[in-house]
Amino acid sequence: MNFSTSPEQDELVGTARRFGQEHLAPFYKQREREGAFDRATLRRMGELGFFGVELPEAYGGLGLDSVTAGLVLETLCAADYNIGQLMVTVSLAGTILATHGQPHVVEPWLKGILAGETIPAIALTEPGGGSDAANLVVRAQRAGDTYVLDGEKTSTSFATQAGVAVVWARTGPPGSGARGISAFLVPLDLPGVTTSEFEDLGGRSAGRGTLHLDGVTVPADHLLGAENQGFVQVMQGFDYSRALIGLQCLAVARQSLEETWASAAERRSFGKPLTAHQGVSFPLAEAETHVHACRLLCLNTLWLKDQGLPHTAEAAMCKWWGPKLAFEVVQNCLLINGHGAYTAEMPYEQRLRDVLGLQIGDGTAQIMKLVIARSKVGRDAVT
Amino acid sequence: MNFSTSPEQDELVGTARRFGQEHLAPFYKQREREGAFDRATLRRMGELGFFGVELPEAYGGLGLDSVTAGLVLETLCAADYNIGQLMVTVSLAGTILATHGQPHVVEPWLKGILAGETIPAIALTEPGGGSDAANLVVRAQRAGDTYVLDGEKTSTSFATQAGVAVVWARTGPPGSGARGISAFLVPLDLPGVTTSEFEDLGGRSAGRGTLHLDGVTVPADHLLGAENQGFVQVMQGFDYSRALIGLQCLAVARQSLEETWASAAERRSFGKPLTAHQGVSFPLAEAETHVHACRLLCLNTLWLKDQGLPHTAEAAMCKWWGPKLAFEVVQNCLLINGHGAYTAEMPYEQRLRDVLGLQIGDGTAQIMKLVIARSKVGRDAVT
Amino acid sequence: MNFSTSPEQDELVGTARRFGQEHLAPFYKQREREGAFDRATLRRMGELGFFGVELPEAYGGLGLDSVTAGLVLETLCAADYNIGQLMVTVSLAGTILATHGQPHVVEPWLKGILAGETIPAIALTEPGGGSDAANLVVRAQRAGDTYVLDGEKTSTSFATQAGVAVVWARTGPPGSGARGISAFLVPLDLPGVTTSEFEDLGGRSAGRGTLHLDGVTVPADHLLGAENQGFVQVMQGFDYSRALIGLQCLAVARQSLEETWASAAERRSFGKPLTAHQGVSFPLAEAETHVHACRLLCLNTLWLKDQGLPHTAEAAMCKWWGPKLAFEVVQNCLLINGHGAYTAEMPYEQRLRDVLGLQIGDGTAQIMKLVIARSKVGRDAVT
Amino acid sequence: MNFSTSPEQDELVGTARRFGQEHLAPFYKQREREGAFDRATLRRMGELGFFGVELPEAYGGLGLDSVTAGLVLETLCAADYNIGQLMVTVSLAGTILATHGQPHVVEPWLKGILAGETIPAIALTEPGGGSDAANLVVRAQRAGDTYVLDGEKTSTSFATQAGVAVVWARTGPPGSGARGISAFLVPLDLPGVTTSEFEDLGGRSAGRGTLHLDGVTVPADHLLGAENQGFVQVMQGFDYSRALIGLQCLAVARQSLEETWASAAERRSFGKPLTAHQGVSFPLAEAETHVHACRLLCLNTLWLKDQGLPHTAEAAMCKWWGPKLAFEVVQNCLLINGHGAYTAEMPYEQRLRDVLGLQIGDGTAQIMKLVIARSKVGRDAVT
Repeated sequence: MNFSTSPEQDELVGTARRFGQEHLAPFYKQREREGAFDRATLRRMGELGFFGVELPEAYGGLGLDSVTAGLVLETLCAADYNIGQLMVTVSLAGTILATHGQPHVVEPWLKGILAGETIPAIALTEPGGGSDAANLVVRAQRAGDTYVLDGEKTSTSFATQAGVAVVWARTGPPGSGARGISAFLVPLDLPGVTTSEFEDLGGRSAGRGTLHLDGVTVPADHLLGAENQGFVQVMQGFDYSRALIGLQCLAVARQSLEETWASAAERRSFGKPLTAHQGVSFPLAEAETHVHACRLLCLNTLWLKDQGLPHTAEAAMCKWWGPKLAFEVVQNCLLINGHGAYTAEMPYEQRLRDVLGLQIGDGTAQIMKLVIARSKVGRDAVT
Repeated sequence: MNFSTSPEQDELVGTARRFGQEHLAPFYKQREREGAFDRATLRRMGELGFFGVELPEAYGGLGLDSVTAGLVLETLCAADYNIGQLMVTVSLAGTILATHGQPHVVEPWLKGILAGETIPAIALTEPGGGSDAANLVVRAQRAGDTYVLDGEKTSTSFATQAGVAVVWARTGPPGSGARGISAFLVPLDLPGVTTSEFEDLGGRSAGRGTLHLDGVTVPADHLLGAENQGFVQVMQGFDYSRALIGLQCLAVARQSLEETWASAAERRSFGKPLTAHQGVSFPLAEAETHVHACRLLCLNTLWLKDQGLPHTAEAAMCKWWGPKLAFEVVQNCLLINGHGAYTAEMPYEQRLRDVLGLQIGDGTAQIMKLVIARSKVGRDAVT
Repeated sequence: MNFSTSPEQDELVGTARRFGQEHLAPFYKQREREGAFDRATLRRMGELGFFGVELPEAYGGLGLDSVTAGLVLETLCAADYNIGQLMVTVSLAGTILATHGQPHVVEPWLKGILAGETIPAIALTEPGGGSDAANLVVRAQRAGDTYVLDGEKTSTSFATQAGVAVVWARTGPPGSGARGISAFLVPLDLPGVTTSEFEDLGGRSAGRGTLHLDGVTVPADHLLGAENQGFVQVMQGFDYSRALIGLQCLAVARQSLEETWASAAERRSFGKPLTAHQGVSFPLAEAETHVHACRLLCLNTLWLKDQGLPHTAEAAMCKWWGPKLAFEVVQNCLLINGHGAYTAEMPYEQRLRDVLGLQIGDGTAQIMKLVIARSKVGRDAVT
Repeated sequence: MNFSTSPEQDELVGTARRFGQEHLAPFYKQREREGAFDRATLRRMGELGFFGVELPEAYGGLGLDSVTAGLVLETLCAADYNIGQLMVTVSLAGTILATHGQPHVVEPWLKGILAGETIPAIALTEPGGGSDAANLVVRAQRAGDTYVLDGEKTSTSFATQAGVAVVWARTGPPGSGARGISAFLVPLDLPGVTTSEFEDLGGRSAGRGTLHLDGVTVPADHLLGAENQGFVQVMQGFDYSRALIGLQCLAVARQSLEETWASAAERRSFGKPLTAHQGVSFPLAEAETHVHACRLLCLNTLWLKDQGLPHTAEAAMCKWWGPKLAFEVVQNCLLINGHGAYTAEMPYEQRLRDVLGLQIGDGTAQIMKLVIARSKVGRDAVT
């Protein structure tokens, strides 16, 4: 057992930290106002290898492991939570493309994504669908050597910014459940694609919204993996993104804790630093404990993935607890920072709004707990 | 012991409910965008007696008790939390003016306030002051038959909308602590008053901001109560407003619960209503329990006030638990309502932002727990 | 709305307090060691009217309301939690007997019970049955003008001390569910009755155990209520006992809090009273808040019962939250009292063991939350 | 980063698991009744190397690292929590003896301890002392080439079973605080030593009690480390034992979870396995998450120790959270197992009583949170 990071990891994390402090943190609120990432920053991130740390070098990735990808992710998210939305999307979409796509199809897209030129999207959720991935109704109909896609995907991050999407659609008959789903690479400049964006509480630079697919025709070689096998691929990918999401949220919590220890030690009440009041310092100490432990849980999950070991239950643990814990910690930090933290002058209120999104997106806490229960008692956990 | 409401209370509450449904709830988000209450609505509320339910009829109040005031408050806040900010301010400022002001001075102001013509403000908190009321530095210097006020009050609701404020200032020498504070009625159209507003996370229609007092001169008869006695008056008033604040926040929680039970029963996952999943319904059932109990706690506190019985510890209980509980409940309702509730199309996200404010304003949870501890062991609770 | 107690209630509570301090508290541990209540104390309680406060004067009760019964109960339970086991049993069994029994049959038993001469038992739960009252298998077979009972009842308080029991048994065919259950008065000195006692973690003076019924023959007039209507009667009775159980548990929590504030103010660490450390006093202040609110919830529920108003959901709230809260509070008080409280020299460890029992008995928290959910969305809460 | 265990660790853990299942678990309750460990079992454990996994081979230890010691500890504690009391004591006392003792003095004792022949004790806490180690009053007075010890040590595990103790006593003048404390090896068969045992709620086979030292004379070479340096040694040792204690408690939680998943899947209510009710399975899934994360926290802390890296804050995290979490998990498992688990027929009630002890012993949660806060803001956390 060895909890140390390698010199290579340390160097990459150090680069990420400096980049975050200089290029991300100062513009965290500005990017929210603009409702988008600026492309120059993304390209610079691409040059530094921050997209696709764990993806093949052939596509412009660094070819490292998931643990390292997680360490870079959390470092950058401490500066801007929303960059994590993009990085997780890149990791998830990138892994699917690299693993299941036909090289001649995916290569140009992947290279663009990893270079920070193209933003990808994950188009899975449908209106009314909630957490139930097996009930998708968006159709992909085979027509000659093409597929024609029709329907609406919702709750998609970067809906209006993305250049390409991984889209899950039903290729089996209605009622085919999880066994009739396929995944496709869909360029978003195709005819028939329109997009719109939500007026969200947070995460606005990652612009969640809707993809309307109206007779969108893609070549048959844009199918990812085997026909009707798309559901299994989703679930594997989610095991990975769930652990990353944990780190993404915890990074915000850790950053908030660091700042709050410092500010609370400086402010005084009743003749003492705020931190000398146990009513202030003890909840922070509890938060330190939980955040530290939950971070180890996420890293352990990524390590399991890197070893090819089962990690579905562990990933579900990361996903339900990480975002929930982060929200609670940021909220408490906001409260300890008092009146000023309720305004846009401090970053806590944006963090609180941002981090809440991942308690909903990518699988609710209820689904995650079901996954954990199934890992223990199998079908006896089916409600 | 009798937990029933009187026919008079029922009628008033019924009127409030209809008013809220017609005139408040539909414009909850619009008032946020406008950053202000529209005056026609306030005047209509004044006509219906909603301001000053518990204040003397001589000033336009209904002359009823605090419990009734609380019942009306919670009914209206179910429709728009922010109206509660105004109602609590009216109750608090109104009680202080009616009790401690010279009738010829306060009468025109009070009548205007209770008629919904004039918005009052409570100007207590100072920059850097946090929760420590005894350390105020805004000065009020006697000059002939006037007082001249200088300094800055912050975190004042309705800073830019109010026509009059109750201002606490130091009339004793620096270092006189709690024993050198006086309260004044200060018309806000006087020379030397300037105001500004914060960019707050929530509560925007109640526009929190700053009052800058630069040589503001008020007649000596605008002193409220005896010189240097202002601190004691503050604390008494807060015992009252703390119980009201509990109800204000819980009203939002109760409304959210009602709506969420209904929406979750309609939505389905895995072939069942969401409410048939215990992972959804049990947290709601727990919330029902806590909200019901906390509401009884608030009503009990108001009843103690009406009887002239001690209620300082009980009021502190209402203040720390009510807003905290309401925030948690609204957040959980938001999560259960899923993706849609993270957008401005549903009211949960605004409620969440709004209700958070009262975990900070009017005394932190830490101060409240200290108050409770002191009620048990006196000076042995002094840290 | 009126939260005050009447002079009559105050007097009764005062008598109960003195009795508890003199006759119950000092022997709390001793009764555990002996595994039984001493009969002289019970008879004295009967003389003072403590059994059957709310039961008809014709049977030796005081003919008062349920709220008053609750106030007396909580006062005595502050001295000895286990006396509450008996009082709740008397209230529950007594109400069933008085309401549904034939007067000539129940009168001698009820008089004996209210006099403290006879201990009653509630025989409902069956082995393997858990919380599911509709699945009872103990049989009561009509034979001429008698019923013959066969089977095993378990988890019955006072199994070896009771003189009489209310026994629910199936009079309908197997599979008749909730509609085939009847209730009977069963004297426990009848042939065919044998009893045994569990080695329980707590509540040992109320000796939980098993009733084995082997061809026990009771006259047909010992049927309570109509044949096959026993299930409805159970559920109504439980609405009442659940509110009482809340008060029973909270009484122990309140007593523990009082003692802990006092002892923690006396003990010192780091040069201060323990209570001057917020890490000690704040959890106690939170406990005060919750306990106060939960107590109001229980009293409100009893008042609803007294008015003949629906109170099923409220009773379920009392039952899941009261015992859980009490356990947490007592545990925290134990911890604050430190090393000494882990031993039999202080009462906390016995209280902790005792109070845990009611998180299981008389309906689990899960069942209670289901009841609350059903009150909100009806069959949409059925899992 | 590498979370895998070595083949050597796996083999040792496998041996420990088998030993626990065969020799510890079946006699868990019996050892409680007897109030002692049987010596044959201890000697067998000594032979297998279970005592002193991390202690030098020269004294009979295995010379391995702390992580391995922790893995063995948790494996054995899953079978009997109380064996952990002894193992932690051996690790703590053994490390102090091996590091600070004079070889010719400590060697025979250490060899006896690691062989399972001699039980050691840690004699630190004093009556009235609570968590404040710097205020010790037991005296050790130099007299020629001896020290004479007088006073009372309390809350010492194995008070009546131990053959030797590490005793901290004041060698500096009264008021010398932390800088006047020394540690001694004290054979407990010396004249002047008497012992007594508490009637504890749990942990009875580890018999907590009191050492009375009445003019106990030890040779000067029984001093451990330098005179007046004993306090620093205590604190370092505690950083280690705190992480072990976390694992000790979590082992009981993990074992309880495993058994409860299995039993709840077998039992049925409302026509389904209990685990198909989310009200049952979700709290278990949450517990799985927290227990898994907290275990990683403890292992990480031990690894930091093995690397010679700072781990004081991490150890405090283990100590406050591990025992608290374990208590909550065991309690919930008890509740889910229902009526039967409230009796001595199932192990949950003993586990609950046992595991509670470590929320008090070896430093309260309050002290631990203070330690964490100090690691963040230094003296600004001093209350």
